[in-house]
Amino acid sequence: MAASAPSTGGEPDPNNSTNLRPPGSSYDAWCGVAHGCTRKLGMKICGFLQKNNSLESSFRERSAKTLLDHQETRFRHTETDFSNLYARDLLPAKNGEEATMQFLLEVVDILTNYIRKTFDRSTKVLDFHHPHQLLEGMEGFNLELSDQPESLEQILVDCRDTLKYGVRTGHPRFFNQLSTGLDIVGLAGEWLTSTANTNMFTYEIAPVFVLMEQLTLRKMMDIVGWRDDEGDGIFSPGGAISNMYSVMVARYKYFPEVKTKGMCAAPRLVLFTSEHSHYSFKKASAALGFGTDNVILLNTDDKGRVIAADLEAKVIAAKQKGYVPIYVNATAGTTVYGAFDPINEIADICEKYNIWLHVDGAWGGSLLMSRKHRHKLSGVERANSVTWNPHKMMGVPLQCSAILVRERGLLEGCNSMCAGYLFQPDKQYDVTYDTGDKAIQCGRHVDIFKFWLMWKAKGTIGFEQHIDKCLDLAAYLYNKIKNRDGYKMVYDAEPQHTNVCFWFFPPSLRGLPDGKDKRERLHKVAPKIKAMMMESGSTMVGYQPQGDKVNFFRMVISNHAATRSDIDFLTDEIERLGQDL
Amino acid sequence: MAASAPSTGGEPDPNNSTNLRPPGSSYDAWCGVAHGCTRKLGMKICGFLQKNNSLESSFRERSAKTLLDHQETRFRHTETDFSNLYARDLLPAKNGEEATMQFLLEVVDILTNYIRKTFDRSTKVLDFHHPHQLLEGMEGFNLELSDQPESLEQILVDCRDTLKYGVRTGHPRFFNQLSTGLDIVGLAGEWLTSTANTNMFTYEIAPVFVLMEQLTLRKMMDIVGWRDDEGDGIFSPGGAISNMYSVMVARYKYFPEVKTKGMCAAPRLVLFTSEHSHYSFKKASAALGFGTDNVILLNTDDKGRVIAADLEAKVIAAKQKGYVPIYVNATAGTTVYGAFDPINEIADICEKYNIWLHVDGAWGGSLLMSRKHRHKLSGVERANSVTWNPHKMMGVPLQCSAILVRERGLLEGCNSMCAGYLFQPDKQYDVTYDTGDKAIQCGRHVDIFKFWLMWKAKGTIGFEQHIDKCLDLAAYLYNKIKNRDGYKMVYDAEPQHTNVCFWFFPPSLRGLPDGKDKRERLHKVAPKIKAMMMESGSTMVGYQPQGDKVNFFRMVISNHAATRSDIDFLTDEIERLGQDL
Repeated sequence: MAASAPSTGGEPDPNNSTNLRPPGSSYDAWCGVAHGCTRKLGMKICGFLQKNNSLESSFRERSAKTLLDHQETRFRHTETDFSNLYARDLLPAKNGEEATMQFLLEVVDILTNYIRKTFDRSTKVLDFHHPHQLLEGMEGFNLELSDQPESLEQILVDCRDTLKYGVRTGHPRFFNQLSTGLDIVGLAGEWLTSTANTNMFTYEIAPVFVLMEQLTLRKMMDIVGWRDDEGDGIFSPGGAISNMYSVMVARYKYFPEVKTKGMCAAPRLVLFTSEHSHYSFKKASAALGFGTDNVILLNTDDKGRVIAADLEAKVIAAKQKGYVPIYVNATAGTTVYGAFDPINEIADICEKYNIWLHVDGAWGGSLLMSRKHRHKLSGVERANSVTWNPHKMMGVPLQCSAILVRERGLLEGCNSMCAGYLFQPDKQYDVTYDTGDKAIQCGRHVDIFKFWLMWKAKGTIGFEQHIDKCLDLAAYLYNKIKNRDGYKMVYDAEPQHTNVCFWFFPPSLRGLPDGKDKRERLHKVAPKIKAMMMESGSTMVGYQPQGDKVNFFRMVISNHAATRSDIDFLTDEIERLGQDL
Repeated sequence: MAASAPSTGGEPDPNNSTNLRPPGSSYDAWCGVAHGCTRKLGMKICGFLQKNNSLESSFRERSAKTLLDHQETRFRHTETDFSNLYARDLLPAKNGEEATMQFLLEVVDILTNYIRKTFDRSTKVLDFHHPHQLLEGMEGFNLELSDQPESLEQILVDCRDTLKYGVRTGHPRFFNQLSTGLDIVGLAGEWLTSTANTNMFTYEIAPVFVLMEQLTLRKMMDIVGWRDDEGDGIFSPGGAISNMYSVMVARYKYFPEVKTKGMCAAPRLVLFTSEHSHYSFKKASAALGFGTDNVILLNTDDKGRVIAADLEAKVIAAKQKGYVPIYVNATAGTTVYGAFDPINEIADICEKYNIWLHVDGAWGGSLLMSRKHRHKLSGVERANSVTWNPHKMMGVPLQCSAILVRERGLLEGCNSMCAGYLFQPDKQYDVTYDTGDKAIQCGRHVDIFKFWLMWKAKGTIGFEQHIDKCLDLAAYLYNKIKNRDGYKMVYDAEPQHTNVCFWFFPPSLRGLPDGKDKRERLHKVAPKIKAMMMESGSTMVGYQPQGDKVNFFRMVISNHAATRSDIDFLTDEIERLGQDL
């Protein structure tokens, strides 16, 4: 056997006909080989393929130089009867290639039609059903799992129905979450990622993705403003986990012995974050053994921004009680108001008292890519760590969240356990690229590729344009409703991010005197309108109470498909549905 | 406006031509509408489409009843010049539909060719390059990100190259990890999941997926053997996080005040797990504030199974020191040996001392689906929690890991923070289906659909057949090499799982006397052979030291494409590459 080329390993395997095929061959060429070699099996397969008249390959001349090497088969999508085909008939089954390709192309047909409809304003955002309705089973759609396999025809029906009864989060009128939209290049990236089906723990099995992660993180750290000799990071399964990482790393920086000895080795540690900040800080404190009581909430101004003087007062008070302040979170873009805490003022206090500064930019970090809006994160380069979720404001498909840490080595020091079966020191390549031991995970999903590919496709300026456009739309909504009959802003100022928070007063409430009765009735308005929106499927927007404020709508815009007409549609819809409440 | 149907919101949006299209129309029908309505814009678009001769729709009669409602456009894949097309030309851009469909179909072409080659034994498993080589840039493939967008042609080249320089984890000769293989139905499920692009936190935006998760977890709990009134769970981003959940929930069960007061509210807590268990228990202990010193490692027999008497002795010793034993992990399928700890014996001790019993079945849990092999987990129904990763032995695409908890309410109690903006109590549906607050995450990737779809397509018996086949292959390898010249088994018994651990002695080592020199030379054999395998791209298999044992190969089989000929290929390759070492 030649040392430099893979071999077929002796006898062809009767269970897998593809064993016979020479590398790089087309089907036509391969059929020729099969004919030529007089193998009975080869002939049979080739006959099968010809009979089914379904594997016509077409070679194309490609202009890009690098494509010249890739002469590939283009499978033609043909009518196929899936009612007698099963999963066991797909690859790696003998003769499974044709069924596999037709099945996948049929799935793609379902998906491309879904994508087309997603961007079509004449389709509903959702086709709402209650849990019991879906559980009882819709016509032809049964969620129950059984012992016996179902035909691929049923599987295709299940795919259609899953999409039918779901929510079109890419619809131009879906405003319900911070993550909305369906980016086509990002989607293509996800399809490729799942086809590659690998794992981020070692360079060994994800060489390209590991390097993409490294380069993309470096780019993000440059944008944050860190020096070339600073900065480390990792993509995690979401902003809550990224925030959790920041707390872990801060603890490791000040009390590294906690890693081995536990929290009993440290004094009573306290963390500070805004009363408007994300609930993941409390989740992290509970999980990591700090306890939620040791998360000290900071007061905010009427726009939801931390009052720095309150932070300093609370730090001093904590120290007087003998607690040790180790961590402050400044939120860049709060979940509800979209508020930006004053990072520079907070950083001054953190420096004065030697406290870790984290910036939770899960939602607002992306504004760093906009020359117009990045001033809102002024001082972010002083942070010790930053959470930044490209899957929110940058429209990257879920999930894609980064935790960036300014000091190198801390992530590794905090989390590494040096598992011998993965991180062998005696590999043939530079094992510093095996970055998996930085993570609290072992296996880690490839979240980088879609983001890298989108960045390639849009360029930095493409993200900037997207962000600027969404913020313009939020300003449009604000200016439209701030003085409009029946609306009241939750706080009276231009939106800081794309969040626009407002109450809608149905006509029946407008004349009422302020007081408990009006508040109680107003509290019920947003849930009622939201319920009607969902039942009609026309649009979706979030609502919630906050502090002593009763339920109000929180509009957020991150969808690149949304336009002013969609904003107009939303207010029309709120007014229409709220008319008679 | 009608209350039950979405409207187009007044004037058509000039930025989005799809605004004009009536629901359910084909392109032909829609062109008719455009002609008829004499809209200048409509005409222009229609003309564009006809000129490009690319949107031929074909309606098909479908036999399945539920398909009758779905008259859909089938896009024909045509030659398209992508060199002047950019991401900004795709949907939601005006006239972006055709470019979008052609781009996606071109991506699918790349992916289907990759899939075809993945199952083709004449292709390499990988095309190895060192990090510096890929970073310096391969011809036409540059990982650097730039400010300006690149053409879609370049994006397609990047997709090809990303796959070219990656590792084919679905190749029949990829044995490197516990997660291998490429299941076609699972892959289709992932493509759909990324197209749906939603989030598991609420029923509101993932109604179907939330119910699928609930039903699938119930099925898994039935298989574990829990009663109908027992059991809760969640899918997490991998086995390490699932194991972390189990430790958190155990702590919450015994010391719920830790959630609010932190670890200082509890006495010194200790955890027990095998010296052969996964490193995630140490990671969890470090993260959660227990400290790695408080993980007490249990001795194992020569097959890597925990010695129950050692557990009891260590529990007693810990108690005598005033520590509080709260948690024991029994591994069902260790990472290296594939060993199954004796769950019943361990459960007896846990019951006696009132300790939480977790079963880490990340790797071995799937054997519960095999009537032939499930006895290896005998007693699992007595566990308080179980980790089970369908993305390993069941061939589900990454990521798919479940944490199952026998007592209901603990996950919720442990982790809930009741964020008002997500988990509003005044929604119109039964909010007990909003299961997101059980998680330590906020946003959570949809990991369920691919698994649910595979289960539908294979049936329970399909998984059983897959598992039995892989274990048969492991037995085949064991029987082949156990007495073969140049091989030595790391432990001398039939494989418990598909792990087969062995040393290969090159001829030059075979005559040497046992001792330090031979051990040192043997230690270098596996890394050298592995490096040569990777350079030639022929196959991949793992190696590692364990305790005082020098580097040995760990063969694992979870790939449904692997056959006996691939096992033969592996041993041939080891012998060929190791011949002259």
